[in-house]
Amino acid sequence: MAQPDIDTDETNRLIASNKVEGTNVYNASAEKLGSIYNFMVDKRSGKVEYAVLQFGGLFGIGSDYYPLPWDVLTYDTEQGGYVVNLDKSVIESAPHYSSGSEPAFDQNYGRQVYDYYGLGYPY
Amino acid sequence: MAQPDIDTDETNRLIASNKVEGTNVYNASAEKLGSIYNFMVDKRSGKVEYAVLQFGGLFGIGSDYYPLPWDVLTYDTEQGGYVVNLDKSVIESAPHYSSGSEPAFDQNYGRQVYDYYGLGYPY
Repeated sequence: MAQPDIDTDETNRLIASNKVEGTNVYNASAEKLGSIYNFMVDKRSGKVEYAVLQFGGLFGIGSDYYPLPWDVLTYDTEQGGYVVNLDKSVIESAPHYSSGSEPAFDQNYGRQVYDYYGLGYPY
Repeated sequence: MAQPDIDTDETNRLIASNKVEGTNVYNASAEKLGSIYNFMVDKRSGKVEYAVLQFGGLFGIGSDYYPLPWDVLTYDTEQGGYVVNLDKSVIESAPHYSSGSEPAFDQNYGRQVYDYYGLGYPY
């Protein structure tokens, strides 16, 4: 599958939503974890609460969705994707859901996700 | 063109990026202005700085891109799209660009856009 050309819709500060979707996500050992499926935006504040990593399965079939706090991701120009400084096993045990069984995405869930990554839930 | 089913990836507070893209945008008189093309996110803060309205042209050909401050948009469940409380002529005169000639999206540009909509530029 072709990767979107992330440079065309990107400035130093800003990145386009449709260029983030589909971008590969690697861990610190350059192991591919998956790709960004979408992200969840707070309707009022316009703040991205989660970037959702699609991970596991084969060619997207049977894969699950792992909401990551935005701050967990770092864009790496050399790899042309996002890097998460975590072991694959840490992601595997992280809060996740399958297609059709999305969580409520309420504050309880938010705290659970942010806690897992050692971050305070700011909302 | 089929509209994405905005309800499936939406909670009370959050909305999925890939469901916002393609959503219709109306003005207060229920006149269709266009649709959301994408949005520009601050890489560090994860904050949406602009939702980009695709407007004008025919079936997306010859249309231009109008960056709107996130706060200018209100989601209207009855219309199944976003509402901008502005006259079509106000949008027509707003800062915009065509495909392939994207602006720098720097702070000068940001101030210009936010000023146009009577909002302080918060970045």
